[in-house]
Amino acid sequence: MADVAAKERKILVAVDEGEESMHALTWCLKNVISENSKGTLVLLYVKRPRAVFTALDGTGYLFSADIMAAMDKYSNDVAECVVEKAKKMCKDLRDVMKVETRIEHGDPRDVICEMTEKLGADVLVMGSHGYGLIKRALLGSVSNHCAQNVKCPVLIVKKPKSIATNN
Amino acid sequence: MADVAAKERKILVAVDEGEESMHALTWCLKNVISENSKGTLVLLYVKRPRAVFTALDGTGYLFSADIMAAMDKYSNDVAECVVEKAKKMCKDLRDVMKVETRIEHGDPRDVICEMTEKLGADVLVMGSHGYGLIKRALLGSVSNHCAQNVKCPVLIVKKPKSIATNN
Repeated sequence: MADVAAKERKILVAVDEGEESMHALTWCLKNVISENSKGTLVLLYVKRPRAVFTALDGTGYLFSADIMAAMDKYSNDVAECVVEKAKKMCKDLRDVMKVETRIEHGDPRDVICEMTEKLGADVLVMGSHGYGLIKRALLGSVSNHCAQNVKCPVLIVKKPKSIATNN
Repeated sequence: MADVAAKERKILVAVDEGEESMHALTWCLKNVISENSKGTLVLLYVKRPRAVFTALDGTGYLFSADIMAAMDKYSNDVAECVVEKAKKMCKDLRDVMKVETRIEHGDPRDVICEMTEKLGADVLVMGSHGYGLIKRALLGSVSNHCAQNVKCPVLIVKKPKSIATNN
């Protein structure tokens, strides 16, 4: 038990703007990583592609290039901000595991699965996206999709609010 | 990190006849539990209800009471055997965490969720049932259902075979 717990592991944590992904990271730091842990913690943020309807409507160009550039900048700033926040939360790991950050672009469902394989993660940690019934039916849950498609173990951490409200 | 890792936790591992649940238990023992862990590991086996068509067909009683009793005995024996096997796998935990076993009866999807809440588990660990597309469409995946419905974090561990075969 103890010997193997000390082997090098690559833990991939998918982070986003939501509280639930930060809770997932916190839970992982407290419950999966111990003083004996070794290896790398990778913080992955996936920037969603800009929805097409923000660039065009039936009449042609709705938004100017300036506005599009501003939106891209905002999206980049959010990504940096989330990753920085997540990195700060891992500051106590400094002597235990390496912490790496990655910002990728695309549909989170696909990119998280691809990066899990590409990086050879030993475990994928993520929040459970709290979509309602309709949104989940249309989009599918990111965590469900990943749990079905990645080959390594997946740890899905619910946001704590649901613990408090659901009795 | 280290302080909190040493707090008492209740880890619920759902076990069944399949290799994948035993792999999930092994992975949990190696990666989630460390020398500093405290608390209880609960091994839960859920006996599925006997399918109705095994007792009756259109002509009336297909199976005698003796056969039904033999089938029940077999089902109980399997449950005991699985739980004993899982318990043996946890023998190194003796000085670290308490190990408890539970055998319950019902639809695994519901019972696993109910027991997770009832026991106040901090994390649910389970294999990812390797249903094919059709069976999954009809029955739904046990792990997906649990990931969506329990409030605590859920760790879904794939069976290693899929790692080797899926390239």
